Amino acid sequence: MTSTVVRLMQDLENIGRDPIRGGYSRPGFGEHELTMLEWFVAQAKARGLDVERDQNGITWAWWDLPAEQTAERTADQTSAREHAIATGSHLDSVPGGGAFDGPLGVASTLASLDQLQEREARGELRRRKPLVLAVFPEEEGSRFGVACLGSRLITGAITPERALSLTDREGNSFADAARATGLNPDLMGADRARLAGLDAFVELHVEQGKFLGNNPLGPAVAVASSILGHGRWRFSFFGQGNHAGTTLMVDRRDPMVAAAAFVLAVRETVAAQADARGTVGRLEPVPGGTNVVASRVDVWLDVRHPEDTVTAALVQSIYDRAVAAAGAEGCTMDMVEESMSGTVHFDDSLSRSLVTSLSATTSGVEMLPSGAGHDAGILAAHLPSAMIFTRNPSGISHAPEEHVEDADAQAGVNALTDALAALLSEEAAQ
Amino acid sequence: MTSTVVRLMQDLENIGRDPIRGGYSRPGFGEHELTMLEWFVAQAKARGLDVERDQNGITWAWWDLPAEQTAERTADQTSAREHAIATGSHLDSVPGGGAFDGPLGVASTLASLDQLQEREARGELRRRKPLVLAVFPEEEGSRFGVACLGSRLITGAITPERALSLTDREGNSFADAARATGLNPDLMGADRARLAGLDAFVELHVEQGKFLGNNPLGPAVAVASSILGHGRWRFSFFGQGNHAGTTLMVDRRDPMVAAAAFVLAVRETVAAQADARGTVGRLEPVPGGTNVVASRVDVWLDVRHPEDTVTAALVQSIYDRAVAAAGAEGCTMDMVEESMSGTVHFDDSLSRSLVTSLSATTSGVEMLPSGAGHDAGILAAHLPSAMIFTRNPSGISHAPEEHVEDADAQAGVNALTDALAALLSEEAAQ
Repeated sequence: MTSTVVRLMQDLENIGRDPIRGGYSRPGFGEHELTMLEWFVAQAKARGLDVERDQNGITWAWWDLPAEQTAERTADQTSAREHAIATGSHLDSVPGGGAFDGPLGVASTLASLDQLQEREARGELRRRKPLVLAVFPEEEGSRFGVACLGSRLITGAITPERALSLTDREGNSFADAARATGLNPDLMGADRARLAGLDAFVELHVEQGKFLGNNPLGPAVAVASSILGHGRWRFSFFGQGNHAGTTLMVDRRDPMVAAAAFVLAVRETVAAQADARGTVGRLEPVPGGTNVVASRVDVWLDVRHPEDTVTAALVQSIYDRAVAAAGAEGCTMDMVEESMSGTVHFDDSLSRSLVTSLSATTSGVEMLPSGAGHDAGILAAHLPSAMIFTRNPSGISHAPEEHVEDADAQAGVNALTDALAALLSEEAAQ
Repeated sequence: MTSTVVRLMQDLENIGRDPIRGGYSRPGFGEHELTMLEWFVAQAKARGLDVERDQNGITWAWWDLPAEQTAERTADQTSAREHAIATGSHLDSVPGGGAFDGPLGVASTLASLDQLQEREARGELRRRKPLVLAVFPEEEGSRFGVACLGSRLITGAITPERALSLTDREGNSFADAARATGLNPDLMGADRARLAGLDAFVELHVEQGKFLGNNPLGPAVAVASSILGHGRWRFSFFGQGNHAGTTLMVDRRDPMVAAAAFVLAVRETVAAQADARGTVGRLEPVPGGTNVVASRVDVWLDVRHPEDTVTAALVQSIYDRAVAAAGAEGCTMDMVEESMSGTVHFDDSLSRSLVTSLSATTSGVEMLPSGAGHDAGILAAHLPSAMIFTRNPSGISHAPEEHVEDADAQAGVNALTDALAALLSEEAAQ
């Protein structure tokens, strides 16, 4: 029998497929992310939830407390939606990404909700807190360059001024893109009141490395201990655009040559530093014609390391190499930091209690560090946050090969349900 | 007073501007090339020309002989449009190209036509041949990858099967793009009859190097002696797409690293060979996300050298370096030749007679080799062809800095008029 989470994932399998890159391309605030979001809203409403989209484009679907518990709260002068437990993920994708990064988390929240509602109906769950399912926009930062844009806005990790001025590859501003989806850019920004109403956030996500995938007889889920510090920098190399046939080699100032030397310098610098990761996955020559010496090449650098001071030193070394590479070709260079997030250690007590509640039904659940960034990592600075990873036997992510077996998807849902049931049953601290 | 050619160029100055790259982006068979073409058709009709678009998308605007000469031909059993003199250029551009590459040639044919019609009206020109103005599509090959696509089709230098299967960056086939502009792809291909009706072809073009620009006191025009042999090859590097944060450096097979090593190998190999040019102006990572190790990187190579055997040896050396660069990163590689045109020496007698006729009004006209490819170079294998270059003081082309002074544009038109007047007055060989 096909499980709920597998059926929900099937609903999404034809939205935003990328026939050229393979996999899915669902950029933030674009057609496909919005189609996915409409699907989520319909699914949430079908389950009796009250759905709202906040000023920062985050969608919240409320499973309020039963009348009896709400009445107790009213007596206590606690409002109905205070002390909520939140769970959620995102629906956008990197270009040519896999099916599970984001959507598996969202589908799992819906499937868990079904289980929780059944438990409550059978009297097996007595909630003391409301549950809210959250969907964050532009988590990948694939369109506007800054990952976790929704969670950065609500927490104030990015100013609305900076966010609104971000542009996509076609030159559209985030302000215009957000407005086109019905948001009012003037209202964007930190929303402490909303965050203060949340007692905890749990994000389920497909694993993006090999930890669980290399232990096929082990558990299908793990709990996150930390998120590796990571940042993005754009390096622009400027030369002289010209004709590929008429320009002598000695007369060239070719930013593509400088950019190529830079890519090799990144690899060399990062490979020499234990535990570091450095990637150039995006490189755009301008104008980008075969018979044209480029006038400018933009190169995006992604660097990660557990210690933020090491990340900073690596980026400085790479910057020095970029200056040298540009100078050797008669080019100029500049660098812009698009984002930087320090290493995040998830709330130890919440994460350990998650391991404990999961261990009741699954043996061998462990904690693992995440190399990937997540909205939970941004929220962690403001409220207790935790993550559950579902096994991905390919060990590959941000690529079409990303995979989750049906049974493991169900195991992830079961784990999320147990974790949420425990959190929802806790007495709210006054 | 603004000259005709300057006014004509002003008509075009707002079509296809590229706000991101600067300059103009007018890809072949795209909206902007078609808008330019509509303008040309209107201009030609306003001058009394009979305009037709052939099966390969080349536009021909006929200035037929006056009735008296046509009558002579009829007596000779020579049809009205045999032994024609053709002149023309193209209206498409590279991405972010200059204003003059192509359009200056087309505008100059119209301005020359005005002068020739005036001369004929004043009895200063007695034509023995019809004149036809030609506009060739997709000369730059910026959209479908093969330069001079129209002239290659009409001459049979490319088979229609191969041309029709070419695709642009969005995956649209040339067949579909051509069909959308009203062409029937089934009819495309070599058209010997049409070529046999032409006695000569003269293309005026903005100079794309520094020959005239470095001689500001010298003549504003020159005549082409040859076109440097040139070709385009696409190198594809294949690795394993993955997440930039979760994939350890030692586990990577990153085609961007291989492609970067390749770009440097191209520079090194080509710089060591006298008279050679080698360029990587276009590089496309797939999927192209900042936080994604690419799964594939496509790199386009442009190589040129006066001796075709040297070009072949250079490409072989570069291929060997590409194999090594891919292997060193655990990637695979393949190469596709997109086009290769041997060095073309223009018809010596036609080109020398052009120098002679231009020297009557301009002192110091010289012949110069062209590093750039042109439709005239493709046609040269089938009929006497020649080129006139108009001075570009920047020495820069395929970039917004490309420039022609108004006075030089007029000097180019005068030169073209003199050259065409001489050719049109010649007795047709029987």
